[in-house]
Amino acid sequence: EILAAIEGALGAGTGPLAGRRALVTSGPTHEPIDPVRFIANRSSGKQGHAIASALAALGAEVTLVSGPVTLPDPPGVTTVHVESAEAMLAACRAALPVDVAVCAAAVADWRVADAADQKRKKQPGQDTMALTLTQNPDILATLSRPGEGRPMLVVGFAAETERVIEQAREKRDRKGCDWILANDVSATSGTFGGDANTVHLITADGEDAWPVLSKAEVGQRLAARIAETLGGEA
Amino acid sequence: EILAAIEGALGAGTGPLAGRRALVTSGPTHEPIDPVRFIANRSSGKQGHAIASALAALGAEVTLVSGPVTLPDPPGVTTVHVESAEAMLAACRAALPVDVAVCAAAVADWRVADAADQKRKKQPGQDTMALTLTQNPDILATLSRPGEGRPMLVVGFAAETERVIEQAREKRDRKGCDWILANDVSATSGTFGGDANTVHLITADGEDAWPVLSKAEVGQRLAARIAETLGGEA
Repeated sequence: EILAAIEGALGAGTGPLAGRRALVTSGPTHEPIDPVRFIANRSSGKQGHAIASALAALGAEVTLVSGPVTLPDPPGVTTVHVESAEAMLAACRAALPVDVAVCAAAVADWRVADAADQKRKKQPGQDTMALTLTQNPDILATLSRPGEGRPMLVVGFAAETERVIEQAREKRDRKGCDWILANDVSATSGTFGGDANTVHLITADGEDAWPVLSKAEVGQRLAARIAETLGGEA
Repeated sequence: EILAAIEGALGAGTGPLAGRRALVTSGPTHEPIDPVRFIANRSSGKQGHAIASALAALGAEVTLVSGPVTLPDPPGVTTVHVESAEAMLAACRAALPVDVAVCAAAVADWRVADAADQKRKKQPGQDTMALTLTQNPDILATLSRPGEGRPMLVVGFAAETERVIEQAREKRDRKGCDWILANDVSATSGTFGGDANTVHLITADGEDAWPVLSKAEVGQRLAARIAETLGGEA
């Protein structure tokens, strides 16, 4: 951590991404059901936080928008804490303009349509309850939308449990982002919460299978690839 | 923590609860929606873990059944880790017989009726999704049911956001437990995740308003009250 702090301090303004602004999302979102219950997911934020650190180490000015995680804020990075997908989108919008956006958060696709102000109670004789979910804003698609403020490079993640590359390529087309980092989150892969990651980088040109790397190494490799593509500010 | 370890070691077999067996549940439960998503709640497990430690410090042999928390296992206590309400009930049954059971976990009332094996995907054009929830087993009511194996003393918690004492008394009658510790978890109380607790102890005879105490102090006060009621093994 001290080393990271030094790297962060040294990196600011000097590395290959000097003068570049980056936005990274990380962690899960929590979608309230009522004041005490919520829908969550198993994202630890380790990968997103590692990417934010790696971009900062290359000199980028990084805003990290993080859902609820137990990780410390990375040194040398501006971290904004949010809970829900709607709050995450608002924080991302506030961080614009940026040169590159990396959407590593596991944003809930759905939120509860009628989140209650008071705790929902079991009623006697009530055996089932229907929870109506409504679509959350799509942060990756929103940031990828062509237009004046679009980042030069938008990178998404695809966490899949089956047909990983095929579904990731479909996701890239559907969202309009430039790159997708596809990873296998099936129960046997150990990705969610674990320290290692098996990733394929999907671009317009094809796909690149990375070896099994630590999440820190995935962050560094992605940051290096981003630096190659963007370079420092002219 | 070192002090707690020493207290735990000294306490075992010597305090006013020497020879008594205790079961404590703590933390939230996580109810799976699919392999990556789940329903959770804001319980930190601080209160349940504090009660387990306090009972052990008075000499009880304690099994703590804990949902997913970020707390360390209390020293001098046998801790069993579970995720769902069904797994928590199974772990509680396995810990019987006990002299006292304290149900401090925030057990999800509902689980998803048809939890999916693969990640649920958004379908194009699909704006809403219905999640059908079904009732979880009621651990407090199950442990309170009269019969041969019933603990001498069963203590439940009532986390309420309004009409706290009235709803706690109704809950005591409905569940069949002996005591209820009622606390206010409205957004302004800071109870969930916080370190302090404002508690009322509801018994058959009446109710006892405790002052604002730390969760450790609530644990000690409850353990002392349990020791008064049960005493050591004859």
